[in-house]
Amino acid sequence: MQIAVDAMGGDLAPKAAVLGAVLAAKEAQIPSVLVGKSEELNQELSQLEDFPRELITIQEAREVVEITDQPAVAVRKKRDSSIVVANSLVKKGEAAAVVSAGSTGAAMTASLFVLGRIRGIARPAIAIPLPTLNGVTVLLDAGANAENDPRDLLQFGIMGSIYAEAVLGLASPKIGLLSIGEEETKGNKLVLETHRLFKESNLEFIGNIEGNDLPMGRCEVAVCDGFTGNVILKFAEGMAAALFRMMKEAVTESAWTKMGALIIKPSLQRLKDRFDYSEYGGAPLLGVNGVSLISHGRSDAKAFKNAIIAAANGVKQDMIGKIRTAIEERNQEEDDV
Amino acid sequence: MQIAVDAMGGDLAPKAAVLGAVLAAKEAQIPSVLVGKSEELNQELSQLEDFPRELITIQEAREVVEITDQPAVAVRKKRDSSIVVANSLVKKGEAAAVVSAGSTGAAMTASLFVLGRIRGIARPAIAIPLPTLNGVTVLLDAGANAENDPRDLLQFGIMGSIYAEAVLGLASPKIGLLSIGEEETKGNKLVLETHRLFKESNLEFIGNIEGNDLPMGRCEVAVCDGFTGNVILKFAEGMAAALFRMMKEAVTESAWTKMGALIIKPSLQRLKDRFDYSEYGGAPLLGVNGVSLISHGRSDAKAFKNAIIAAANGVKQDMIGKIRTAIEERNQEEDDV
Repeated sequence: MQIAVDAMGGDLAPKAAVLGAVLAAKEAQIPSVLVGKSEELNQELSQLEDFPRELITIQEAREVVEITDQPAVAVRKKRDSSIVVANSLVKKGEAAAVVSAGSTGAAMTASLFVLGRIRGIARPAIAIPLPTLNGVTVLLDAGANAENDPRDLLQFGIMGSIYAEAVLGLASPKIGLLSIGEEETKGNKLVLETHRLFKESNLEFIGNIEGNDLPMGRCEVAVCDGFTGNVILKFAEGMAAALFRMMKEAVTESAWTKMGALIIKPSLQRLKDRFDYSEYGGAPLLGVNGVSLISHGRSDAKAFKNAIIAAANGVKQDMIGKIRTAIEERNQEEDDV
Repeated sequence: MQIAVDAMGGDLAPKAAVLGAVLAAKEAQIPSVLVGKSEELNQELSQLEDFPRELITIQEAREVVEITDQPAVAVRKKRDSSIVVANSLVKKGEAAAVVSAGSTGAAMTASLFVLGRIRGIARPAIAIPLPTLNGVTVLLDAGANAENDPRDLLQFGIMGSIYAEAVLGLASPKIGLLSIGEEETKGNKLVLETHRLFKESNLEFIGNIEGNDLPMGRCEVAVCDGFTGNVILKFAEGMAAALFRMMKEAVTESAWTKMGALIIKPSLQRLKDRFDYSEYGGAPLLGVNGVSLISHGRSDAKAFKNAIIAAANGVKQDMIGKIRTAIEERNQEEDDV
């Protein structure tokens, strides 16, 4: 089953999207439908050779949601935009999942508007795999919401665990609640109440974690409200960029240190790659009725390829069905109380 | 005027505190009064030679607030603890400022309880200088509060600017409000309302900033609630530690890369030092009636020395007087409206 790719979204569109889809077809035999202006897409494809043509199709969409558009307005008015059409293909069952590197707001709004929420989910969440000492920690919500309540956070824990296990392959993921102290008496009102909900649940809850536990990888799933998560995600991006830039300046002080830097460059490059968004490709919008991956605006071909592979994996592992079942069970428990 | 040093607070107490005070006396001619168990302190001092003895005095305090104590209970009950006595010296005018590396909760509670708040300040805040590409950004509140309202955040902006300018020497500091988008319509309820207050004020407000703007150093003062600030502070500490550890592992893969690493080690060490809490020594608790510096629990002698120097600088620059005047003026403006 093919993946719908919003080929007009992202700073490097449509070239990066087209190339990413071609790489996913070549390397992982995953079929994609490229959604966007067909003449542009055909032109990009015509420049490429030696790829499984039968795995790439094109779906015409005449409009584009611009980064300057108000997401809610654009999604409502631009019905023939690539992002709306890509989501519609999933809704109609003509595609299994959608990948977009357009503005996060537009991608989120389109999926919410077209696919709708999974029954019982109050607020969808963006889940980001953050690099840690020993792998990754899934942080959610990373910015789908500006404000959340305790029940949202509990649902984030449920959805994050399913994503971590089914898609990222992290066995029996543990859930930590981000706070300002390990004791259950530490935190703001939201965290104190959420802690109680997690404690009463049958989830793999390890209690509160603190900011420094994230890079140390103390748990597989870290839950917080969308404001806190978005600030951390962007801070992490900025700090990695700043540190690697400072490091470069520090080691090019003299010809001697430049030589040392040259020797360790490949090792440091591999480390830098671990902090590169394109490695994991995209962040799922969990809680909508379909696999929807939101990729970084600066996504290159590799990022698109990895997002398409991750989306296909989410479909194969029936991520949506698993979330649906888990939420139904949870709501059943609540009703029983 | 002497600085009161809680000599029993911190993982390396009392040795690090004693040595730090001696270094501040030797290098900056700042007098300190070491507060704690006099026999232990005298023993530490007796092992040191060649320092200006007249600049170091000892004030007996028989009790110690332990890291496991509940701060509010300990400060009320242990009236003869080093942290309470150190703050009392400031209250009585026998010391000009207090430095403690004990538990943040105890240090904060003792200063609040003994020194009290500056008139008109609702909630004191911990201000942390975060390293950036081009210097430092003062982030506050970094954890004095779990919950804040818009007026608190406005006061944090006022106090943070005074600290940045008077103590850190950052000329005409600009204030940014930490949010999840630059537009004034982006953020949670707290940020939306705070944005309005800042915009109507005559402060040097540059608008919302995002997480990645912090390490990039877009402004001198970054304002947020204590929950968000504490999570970021600890995340930054954890991420720096994780990155430098990963880097070390990456460059010791082979004899060849080890040689490269050896060459650039001094350069990288200087960079690592920029992320070292001991460089700036301590974070002021702004809003209490006296200069109170809270140092990292792992403070070594250098960290104590730098905290003592920063505290003396806060006194010399009349930081408290400037905050008092600014808050009075602000409250006058509010009354006039």
